[in-house]
Amino acid sequence: MRVELHRRYHLSASHRLHSDAYTLEQNRAVFGKCNNPYGHGHNYVIEVAMSGPVDPATGMMTNLADLDAFANKELIAHFDHQNLNTLADFQTLVPSTENLCIVVFGIFAQYPHARLERIRIEETGNNSFEYSGPAAP
Amino acid sequence: MRVELHRRYHLSASHRLHSDAYTLEQNRAVFGKCNNPYGHGHNYVIEVAMSGPVDPATGMMTNLADLDAFANKELIAHFDHQNLNTLADFQTLVPSTENLCIVVFGIFAQYPHARLERIRIEETGNNSFEYSGPAAP
Amino acid sequence: MRVELHRRYHLSASHRLHSDAYTLEQNRAVFGKCNNPYGHGHNYVIEVAMSGPVDPATGMMTNLADLDAFANKELIAHFDHQNLNTLADFQTLVPSTENLCIVVFGIFAQYPHARLERIRIEETGNNSFEYSGPAAP
Amino acid sequence: MRVELHRRYHLSASHRLHSDAYTLEQNRAVFGKCNNPYGHGHNYVIEVAMSGPVDPATGMMTNLADLDAFANKELIAHFDHQNLNTLADFQTLVPSTENLCIVVFGIFAQYPHARLERIRIEETGNNSFEYSGPAAP
Amino acid sequence: MRVELHRRYHLSASHRLHSDAYTLEQNRAVFGKCNNPYGHGHNYVIEVAMSGPVDPATGMMTNLADLDAFANKELIAHFDHQNLNTLADFQTLVPSTENLCIVVFGIFAQYPHARLERIRIEETGNNSFEYSGPAAP
Amino acid sequence: MRVELHRRYHLSASHRLHSDAYTLEQNRAVFGKCNNPYGHGHNYVIEVAMSGPVDPATGMMTNLADLDAFANKELIAHFDHQNLNTLADFQTLVPSTENLCIVVFGIFAQYPHARLERIRIEETGNNSFEYSGPAAP
Repeated sequence: MRVELHRRYHLSASHRLHSDAYTLEQNRAVFGKCNNPYGHGHNYVIEVAMSGPVDPATGMMTNLADLDAFANKELIAHFDHQNLNTLADFQTLVPSTENLCIVVFGIFAQYPHARLERIRIEETGNNSFEYSGPAAP
Repeated sequence: MRVELHRRYHLSASHRLHSDAYTLEQNRAVFGKCNNPYGHGHNYVIEVAMSGPVDPATGMMTNLADLDAFANKELIAHFDHQNLNTLADFQTLVPSTENLCIVVFGIFAQYPHARLERIRIEETGNNSFEYSGPAAP
Repeated sequence: MRVELHRRYHLSASHRLHSDAYTLEQNRAVFGKCNNPYGHGHNYVIEVAMSGPVDPATGMMTNLADLDAFANKELIAHFDHQNLNTLADFQTLVPSTENLCIVVFGIFAQYPHARLERIRIEETGNNSFEYSGPAAP
Repeated sequence: MRVELHRRYHLSASHRLHSDAYTLEQNRAVFGKCNNPYGHGHNYVIEVAMSGPVDPATGMMTNLADLDAFANKELIAHFDHQNLNTLADFQTLVPSTENLCIVVFGIFAQYPHARLERIRIEETGNNSFEYSGPAAP
Repeated sequence: MRVELHRRYHLSASHRLHSDAYTLEQNRAVFGKCNNPYGHGHNYVIEVAMSGPVDPATGMMTNLADLDAFANKELIAHFDHQNLNTLADFQTLVPSTENLCIVVFGIFAQYPHARLERIRIEETGNNSFEYSGPAAP
Repeated sequence: MRVELHRRYHLSASHRLHSDAYTLEQNRAVFGKCNNPYGHGHNYVIEVAMSGPVDPATGMMTNLADLDAFANKELIAHFDHQNLNTLADFQTLVPSTENLCIVVFGIFAQYPHARLERIRIEETGNNSFEYSGPAAP
């Protein structure tokens, strides 16, 4: 009786897409207006998918109060109302939403009470990215 | 040429999360405000995922009129505008959305014209649960 | 330079539409399945509309931190995860969403830092009610 | 480090569900009001799911500017503000949303910069269809 | 104690924007791809705003069961899954969403149990039109 | 036969709430995490409300192609993918969404083909601001 839970968290953050390996012209060509020097921002929606068996005593797969406490401490406190480019996670990584998925996956993989299946991030209403962890060897 | 159909049905129902195996204090600790004695409620969105080949004559995988008739009779008539705790399905089962997924899966598994892939239920806009049936042995 | 702010709060609650002035048959005829004896529930969305001048020093009409603190204390703490029929507000008032609008209007009319314009409550995605206060005499 | 991208495109189009293999009565029985002679329409939402590794230089799986240019040329220009029944794709195929999924899958399978995983089309807010390509033999 | 009710109905219909007073070139210039000869379509959302006092016995402004019965008979039965250009209402009127608002206003103005305030129609998620009736003289 | 049109435009931008008139501590107290030094961002939804009579020849109040061209030139080109604090509009004005409403109102008040009624801006799904112009004297 394994179920999957999807829980959404909301972040407002800014970023600038820019690669130090490129010239100014190359950055502008590759990233377009996402390369504007002072950055821009999004309301990111982070959807965490967790799976596990249902506990017969509680009817729950994992207690949402536990997951929310974990998310507030490990996700919201670090990323909400921040400029992603200034964070340690993105000093050598372009703060694209693809990479944000991978970073956030690493965070929720530490959640002790359920198995992380995937992270999906909506950058805008027409755009989302999903990461399910490294492929099995 | 197998396609998957996702069809959403809407239920307004109430529930109280409570386990007879726990003391009052334990219930309060585990379920928090979801344990409030007189219950609370949700607009549940039930998304049924069905799969099958497309019929070349009709261009359809299954006729939505058939699926809707089945859903009205087997899902809506039993659950809509009800208190889940009072229903036969939840006399020995905590009426969590995890368990509601499993119960609703059992219902749509009887639909004769397509294969049930999974049930997803949104409890709130930030919360959903998914059940895909028992794991293959 | 008066602006209007719309802020949304979310409540999960249950209710039963029932009038003591009616017989069982009349209640059933008037309220239909909303009269089911054990109640049902909704995810209510409460949208508060406030107006006032923009403070030139802050660029704000009212500080959302103040409004949220007020809403948490006066709205969420009283109504969230409750059965409306059991609350003092609805002992002599049918807990319809129309009446919930009027009750919630009375609460936010006490907010000291801006003028309450109206309360809008979504009962479902297809249904909302709005109350703008008593008509001017 | 494979990620999946979901990108949504919007089409307003009309269609009539009708099969030349059926009599008028059979068409009416199978398709109901979707068989109304002059057609009806929808705001279709086309969600394209693509996968691939993240390019370490750009932080991107594929450049959205490339995908959007492809979609504008191959999808929007052909289908938007059209009557599906009049298009070459649907001369011998019922223009159901199931079949539209399969046709659109064939288009995005030609996109050179990422691997197409699936096409999901929302016909209405309560209805969507998904096609993931022919099953592996 | 006057409240306002907003109730949403959903229509799938098609139309072609075209004026007999214009040449083909003028039609194309004015209406763009909305003038495509075989039409296109939308999922229209019709939001009806009604006002009135709350009945103390029922807690309702108007019974939604009455309004829904009226809407099914007078709105849905005539417009849903139709091509607007073929309807009597639009023989001398361009079937724009502006004009659809005015036609639908005329329908709900006949509802006997509450006062019609306005009709709002969403043509797409980014587009809506509103009509509040003829201006007071 | 006056109708009102609501048209939505989408901007991704960043801002930092900060007032030069305040000390660091005051800024932090007033603006909270919105004062984080490197800014944060939002997907802003700008809803423009315009009114006017319906042209009997076209069935339109204003041609959306005209309004979109105006919006692309005067709104999107200046604000999309920008940091609001760096723009000329906000050199002496806190770039709050209240003030963004007022600035955007000034832009659309120049649109020559319809009367601007109001600007509504959604900062997040739970937050919006509205400005209807200076009060009549």
